[in-house]
Amino acid sequence: MIFEVALVMGSLTDWDTLSFTSEVLQDFGISFHKEVISAHRTPERVLDFASQAHSKGFKIIIAGAGGAAHLPGMLAASSILPVIGIPINSTCLHGTDALLSIVQMPKGIPVATMAIGIPGAINAALLAVQILAINNQDLQQKIIAYKLQQKTHVETMNLELHKLK
Amino acid sequence: MIFEVALVMGSLTDWDTLSFTSEVLQDFGISFHKEVISAHRTPERVLDFASQAHSKGFKIIIAGAGGAAHLPGMLAASSILPVIGIPINSTCLHGTDALLSIVQMPKGIPVATMAIGIPGAINAALLAVQILAINNQDLQQKIIAYKLQQKTHVETMNLELHKLK
Amino acid sequence: MIFEVALVMGSLTDWDTLSFTSEVLQDFGISFHKEVISAHRTPERVLDFASQAHSKGFKIIIAGAGGAAHLPGMLAASSILPVIGIPINSTCLHGTDALLSIVQMPKGIPVATMAIGIPGAINAALLAVQILAINNQDLQQKIIAYKLQQKTHVETMNLELHKLK
Amino acid sequence: MIFEVALVMGSLTDWDTLSFTSEVLQDFGISFHKEVISAHRTPERVLDFASQAHSKGFKIIIAGAGGAAHLPGMLAASSILPVIGIPINSTCLHGTDALLSIVQMPKGIPVATMAIGIPGAINAALLAVQILAINNQDLQQKIIAYKLQQKTHVETMNLELHKLK
Amino acid sequence: MIFEVALVMGSLTDWDTLSFTSEVLQDFGISFHKEVISAHRTPERVLDFASQAHSKGFKIIIAGAGGAAHLPGMLAASSILPVIGIPINSTCLHGTDALLSIVQMPKGIPVATMAIGIPGAINAALLAVQILAINNQDLQQKIIAYKLQQKTHVETMNLELHKLK
Amino acid sequence: MIFEVALVMGSLTDWDTLSFTSEVLQDFGISFHKEVISAHRTPERVLDFASQAHSKGFKIIIAGAGGAAHLPGMLAASSILPVIGIPINSTCLHGTDALLSIVQMPKGIPVATMAIGIPGAINAALLAVQILAINNQDLQQKIIAYKLQQKTHVETMNLELHKLK
Amino acid sequence: MIFEVALVMGSLTDWDTLSFTSEVLQDFGISFHKEVISAHRTPERVLDFASQAHSKGFKIIIAGAGGAAHLPGMLAASSILPVIGIPINSTCLHGTDALLSIVQMPKGIPVATMAIGIPGAINAALLAVQILAINNQDLQQKIIAYKLQQKTHVETMNLELHKLK
Amino acid sequence: MIFEVALVMGSLTDWDTLSFTSEVLQDFGISFHKEVISAHRTPERVLDFASQAHSKGFKIIIAGAGGAAHLPGMLAASSILPVIGIPINSTCLHGTDALLSIVQMPKGIPVATMAIGIPGAINAALLAVQILAINNQDLQQKIIAYKLQQKTHVETMNLELHKLK
Repeated sequence: MIFEVALVMGSLTDWDTLSFTSEVLQDFGISFHKEVISAHRTPERVLDFASQAHSKGFKIIIAGAGGAAHLPGMLAASSILPVIGIPINSTCLHGTDALLSIVQMPKGIPVATMAIGIPGAINAALLAVQILAINNQDLQQKIIAYKLQQKTHVETMNLELHKLK
Repeated sequence: MIFEVALVMGSLTDWDTLSFTSEVLQDFGISFHKEVISAHRTPERVLDFASQAHSKGFKIIIAGAGGAAHLPGMLAASSILPVIGIPINSTCLHGTDALLSIVQMPKGIPVATMAIGIPGAINAALLAVQILAINNQDLQQKIIAYKLQQKTHVETMNLELHKLK
Repeated sequence: MIFEVALVMGSLTDWDTLSFTSEVLQDFGISFHKEVISAHRTPERVLDFASQAHSKGFKIIIAGAGGAAHLPGMLAASSILPVIGIPINSTCLHGTDALLSIVQMPKGIPVATMAIGIPGAINAALLAVQILAINNQDLQQKIIAYKLQQKTHVETMNLELHKLK
Repeated sequence: MIFEVALVMGSLTDWDTLSFTSEVLQDFGISFHKEVISAHRTPERVLDFASQAHSKGFKIIIAGAGGAAHLPGMLAASSILPVIGIPINSTCLHGTDALLSIVQMPKGIPVATMAIGIPGAINAALLAVQILAINNQDLQQKIIAYKLQQKTHVETMNLELHKLK
Repeated sequence: MIFEVALVMGSLTDWDTLSFTSEVLQDFGISFHKEVISAHRTPERVLDFASQAHSKGFKIIIAGAGGAAHLPGMLAASSILPVIGIPINSTCLHGTDALLSIVQMPKGIPVATMAIGIPGAINAALLAVQILAINNQDLQQKIIAYKLQQKTHVETMNLELHKLK
Repeated sequence: MIFEVALVMGSLTDWDTLSFTSEVLQDFGISFHKEVISAHRTPERVLDFASQAHSKGFKIIIAGAGGAAHLPGMLAASSILPVIGIPINSTCLHGTDALLSIVQMPKGIPVATMAIGIPGAINAALLAVQILAINNQDLQQKIIAYKLQQKTHVETMNLELHKLK
Repeated sequence: MIFEVALVMGSLTDWDTLSFTSEVLQDFGISFHKEVISAHRTPERVLDFASQAHSKGFKIIIAGAGGAAHLPGMLAASSILPVIGIPINSTCLHGTDALLSIVQMPKGIPVATMAIGIPGAINAALLAVQILAINNQDLQQKIIAYKLQQKTHVETMNLELHKLK
Repeated sequence: MIFEVALVMGSLTDWDTLSFTSEVLQDFGISFHKEVISAHRTPERVLDFASQAHSKGFKIIIAGAGGAAHLPGMLAASSILPVIGIPINSTCLHGTDALLSIVQMPKGIPVATMAIGIPGAINAALLAVQILAINNQDLQQKIIAYKLQQKTHVETMNLELHKLK
């Protein structure tokens, strides 16, 4: 079976954050495969997974990691696919260590970095949808609908706000 | 004429950084249109540009900005296209203000954030290439060649290193 | 109906902080209109609201936002009115992201930035009162009374302190 | 003679930054008085100046300070006028100390904080103009013209950009 | 009555931290007067208190403050006495704002800055004791005894540690 | 010979900063002994020096250090004298490492921490003078004169400012 | 009796973190002696302990400390043994103060710094094992087994992940 | 030929820092092999190198890297040898990104982290020497001599200091 997105995490505890990515991908009907691969505990699997990702039919890799977050960068090193990185808030430093470890990649190996934590997990899925939508009018319509829904939600909040004293 | 990438900046001084993006896009043969649009000085143009970007044929928007960097996020707000953001080092705070203003986007509106400064400018172009390569075997070959070239460059550096005492 | 102050927020959850602004405005008898407008979800409404704010009779805009807080800056971009910004503590980064996204505005588009969170929300209202008081002797008297009340409160705390062992 | 704005600094070396405030105030035809008053070296003069500022006819106080920047906050403590604070980059910490010392004011005593350094110095003047413009149609027109000029400058930069290869 | 130390705070809520200072001063038999004086709400009282502190017989001023902590610096500005400052953790920024606002004083007006929070509150008292001990052999003996007690406490902890598995 | 102040540094390169301390101590006629002692290279000398400092007649220890600045804290650990610490800007981190290593002392062992760099070096000397002045009317007069001189300098700057356009 | 590792902490409260070090050392069968020694309360014992550590047969020193964490650096100053430092999260600053106080050692006195808190405590033990394994094939086998166990744990997590919806 | 230490860097530009490591290793007569291997450009070589390092006879790996510094952590992931990491100051963030990317490793994979830049490069070599000295009395004597030399250098600096006015 072929999946469009690979959703990779270094530990099962990261699922608390990445389940939000999963949910949005499902909402948009994007097929994805999720897997625990640790840059530090299973480094050779990171390279195997990344180097085979394209030939297996994946189009995008999404990876979440905390602390000295090497997973997104190492996947990007071994794949020609776009990699989206989500800094996870899992240490004393509130995700700033993960943010810098993911975003400050050297020239030559980009990682599309999202916000720390759940907002970033949601946005990683949305960015994947936007990328896949470039050649998919159906997805384009879904994004337009999603954005409209967001606007409507703002209106709903407005009505609630005006009910408050 | 139709361009694949829109390369947007808030000020001409940002070109010192974004010319590196331009160079990589040219190396990969990606057509792009470059434009100065300021989130703060020409906000309505940001919205016009972003909301028309898809219908004009752009596939990806790349935007660089410094300080309270609102340009990438505002483009993302009004477009369904993937937006890549480059934090520019233009204030006393060495780009940390730009980094946080770009990466910490709320759920619903992703910006694919790159490293601060020139490495980020180069990587923005490469990420755009990777995205466009998803459905373009020719670009895939070029990325593979680019990565091979990087490996060769490491070997060259190795030879030079071993010549050093 | 004409209001002196527009109190704008990006999400209903910001009301937990901005209700303190509301309370102080009420205490000083300042008329205000409150509204949810999202820089990222309803960008065109931000521009419409801001560009019409002056002609609708508003004198001051107060805006609160968290994370990559673009709302105050985008309102300032499209209005000639003074804009007061309140960084809201809504992410892992304790409001530092919001603070830098609001305060580090480029030359040409000021946002009067307040402290992070509730102290800033209270002070935003007080700054609006001070601005409106410039040509309003009644408000000047109210500010003098407020400051006197603060002094008295210090004395009350002093008495309580001296009762402690 | 009566001045609309008091431009206060803690040291003559701050003039390198605050001369930009002065220039913008002059451009908009705002009368102002400039003075060196040090929170730490002449504290009683700070209180005298601030407590008399309103009766002397000042409408707004602008104050720049670096390091443990107490000047804006202490002026705000003793005056009913709106106070605008400019963090000056004068220590090893690149203005972050000044920024936090100015912006993190407790509830009750707002300081309208600007960006660190020259952008903040320019914006302090513009915010003062915006405040004074609330009841001054002539100033409103000047702000509209200034904003138009900014838009035009973006267009000029655009033309220059397109001339670049 | 004459007190050796003035223990000053900006708000009664600071007593949660400064009560630790009080306790240590009492343990060492140092007479002290405690008072709420707010740099921002009662600025003239800060100057009065500070400028009279020496003639009233105080030898040292200890001041705690949070956020944009101006109290220690303003007391130092108006007094010839040594001032000890305690940064209090009272905002979103975990005391870093208070630390920088207290420690980064400009040349000419020192504030002896302690650690953030309770450790700093305890140490402020100990520093005052050390200062007073310079000309007081009795206090010197008490400090020697205190340091010995600390050493003994380390031994006690050691015994407890070795009981643990 | 007996000196009032011990001025200690970890390396001769720190003299670039600490010579400012020396100059102020000389201006106030305070006798001092200066010495290079390294917490990391000559730890036993730190303890010897500190434990004998009181009996040798020193009244105050001033110590400057950069990076993981242990010197002031280790001197404080072994002496009953007040220790004043100056964070020196000598690494990539602009003195923030030295500041935190000096100021964040645990309860029980205070170090009176000054600002980073030259302002802190000057203030260390002034704090020492203030401490010594507690029982020395002559020094009290000198501090009053110094503060008066500072006020006069503000006036001089004011005159110069008003000459500027 | 001779121990391979000395496990040193400044306070019994550090045991909450360092018990994780203890547990890993036991798992690998490394003999160790644990002791409370405070850099600030028992400085001479730090020097005694460190200078005798080698002759007593210790091969490695592991030290945990929080705040202005001087213990690891001072042990390194007086010993020829490798010292491993663990920054403990014990102040308002979430361990950043301890991290910088431990890692930013000057040239000449290395401390092998681990991550903040429990991950660092575990890794300190593992690094000690790796060092001891250099000349110990039995330990090498144990490390290989540990790494294999980590890989297996990733697989287990993978199975659990795939059971999730 | 068998080397004791592998000195690895991601780019030839890192040699500006790592040549200091090389120099100290030579001074102590430690055999080492230096090599450019990039975690991001040659990831499979990182794994090959690391997984074979032990069997090739290396005892310790030293790795320097800047930005999102993944090299030390990835080497540690694939080797049973102790890995020493040097954060290199090569981006806008002054080495803080490299420091956090190296030191904040998750439990299970330690990297012995040194100070940022040249002091860290020197100390990496010294730590390697200390580790190798555990079973090498000759090296122990050399470390003792090195430490003595450091003490002597402090004395020399002292003499120079006392010559200064």
